Amino acid sequence: MEINNIRKDINEYLENYFKEKGTYNKVIYDSSSYSLNIGGKRIRPILFALSYFIYREEYKSIMPMACAMEMIHTYSLIHDDLPCMDDDDLRRGKPTNHKVYGENIAVLAGDNLLNEAMILMMNYSLKNGGNSLRAAYEIAKAAGAEGMIGGQVVDIISEGKEISKEELEYMHSKKTGALIKASILGGAILAGAPERDLEYLEKYGEKLGLVFQIKDDILDVVGDIKALGKNVHADEEHNKTNFITVYGLEKCQELCSKLTEECVTILRTLTVDAECLVELTYSLLNREN
Amino acid sequence: MEINNIRKDINEYLENYFKEKGTYNKVIYDSSSYSLNIGGKRIRPILFALSYFIYREEYKSIMPMACAMEMIHTYSLIHDDLPCMDDDDLRRGKPTNHKVYGENIAVLAGDNLLNEAMILMMNYSLKNGGNSLRAAYEIAKAAGAEGMIGGQVVDIISEGKEISKEELEYMHSKKTGALIKASILGGAILAGAPERDLEYLEKYGEKLGLVFQIKDDILDVVGDIKALGKNVHADEEHNKTNFITVYGLEKCQELCSKLTEECVTILRTLTVDAECLVELTYSLLNREN
Repeated sequence: MEINNIRKDINEYLENYFKEKGTYNKVIYDSSSYSLNIGGKRIRPILFALSYFIYREEYKSIMPMACAMEMIHTYSLIHDDLPCMDDDDLRRGKPTNHKVYGENIAVLAGDNLLNEAMILMMNYSLKNGGNSLRAAYEIAKAAGAEGMIGGQVVDIISEGKEISKEELEYMHSKKTGALIKASILGGAILAGAPERDLEYLEKYGEKLGLVFQIKDDILDVVGDIKALGKNVHADEEHNKTNFITVYGLEKCQELCSKLTEECVTILRTLTVDAECLVELTYSLLNREN
Repeated sequence: MEINNIRKDINEYLENYFKEKGTYNKVIYDSSSYSLNIGGKRIRPILFALSYFIYREEYKSIMPMACAMEMIHTYSLIHDDLPCMDDDDLRRGKPTNHKVYGENIAVLAGDNLLNEAMILMMNYSLKNGGNSLRAAYEIAKAAGAEGMIGGQVVDIISEGKEISKEELEYMHSKKTGALIKASILGGAILAGAPERDLEYLEKYGEKLGLVFQIKDDILDVVGDIKALGKNVHADEEHNKTNFITVYGLEKCQELCSKLTEECVTILRTLTVDAECLVELTYSLLNREN
């Protein structure tokens, strides 16, 4: 299982998805496609495909569900970058959606990607039945007010304020963690994984989401703007509390390594061989963007 | 079948929906609830409930699906009112969402209502099976880039420009019409209406959506700001083409009456008694807000 092959399949699916669509409304497809194909790492759909693959090999058939994850993630970035939110000009080394298409189209491009993800998952569920609607429902919940949107809200209202460790952990477990966990659970649910494994994968997803966010905060401080493709020290500028401001850099690096090892231990208790997920977990710890 | 009773049930469902939810993220529920319960006419969920009711009496069981329509409609209004879109301060006689909660929370409240509508419909489909996922899929498509979002995009990009009759009709058939049609079809699909009736209801939905929009344009010119609860002459101010600017007031009033009669004729060809929908259709023609 080559992770690069999965990424290639995902990129191909997403690059073609909105191609040659639209009449009077063409700009909504162009703008959605722009952000969707701006060079994302595809971590969520890869996680989704891998956690399906460890149970059932033919992962190509579930591309629509995996790629719905990337659409949800991309919509959240477009709205996050808006002037009234984080006001970011740069994303993955390119101008953000509203810088290219204007704020009004950027709002609608975000709306469209969320809506299209739901269309994709519903259509897949109609055609395939089985566990697919259950997986879609978990994903929709993870994207909502008790998941990602809830985390974004807390992020916004706590800007410029001191927040507690509990609030910080709540914020990130929702803002980043919820969708990462749902990618892992979604793939496994779709593949019909045993309930016992789903429980372990839920714990794995929580820890991986946390590592991912702490690593993001580390890169915001020590990262290279070129490798990252976005501004560094962004949290500092926005006067935001993050894992570095609470725990310090050294402690965060230790935490990352410790959590990664815990992730690997969990993966090795599953009823199936999950070495491809182990490999991905290590690569997330060692990433430079 | 008292339309007022259905409206009461819908209001009760929506008023309680986000009540006492949330911890750190409470403001997302408050802001979503604010716009959801600001005095909407509930036309879409009423249409949904009625077109279910003409086939199956126990309409109360489908409240989650009907109310998902109102959530989608409300999210589109919140985003439409944003400073980067129509920049409206007043909606239904009250300050718009971003005037109360700020632009950033308003963006997320809109996102949340769209997301929550999908959660509701997926959860309903998981529990009830049958035609519910098919109805949900039709609704999601109507809300998307080939439906409502597509219409909004054309509305935005054509601002300040002369547009053709074809573009105007495309814009409104998508922006307002798609969700109205989906409300009617969604309810009937859920109730298991015969395919022959679904075809007629599709035509009814298209015509009703058109009447609804032309009437909106008429009220924008001759309406009373107090009854409407929003600014009049808004299209003129934004230099927008609408049915009045293309056809003139008198012709628009004629068109409304003619289309309403066509709607009623269609309803009377259905395999069931649809007088409650006839009543609603006339009340939409005669509305003052």
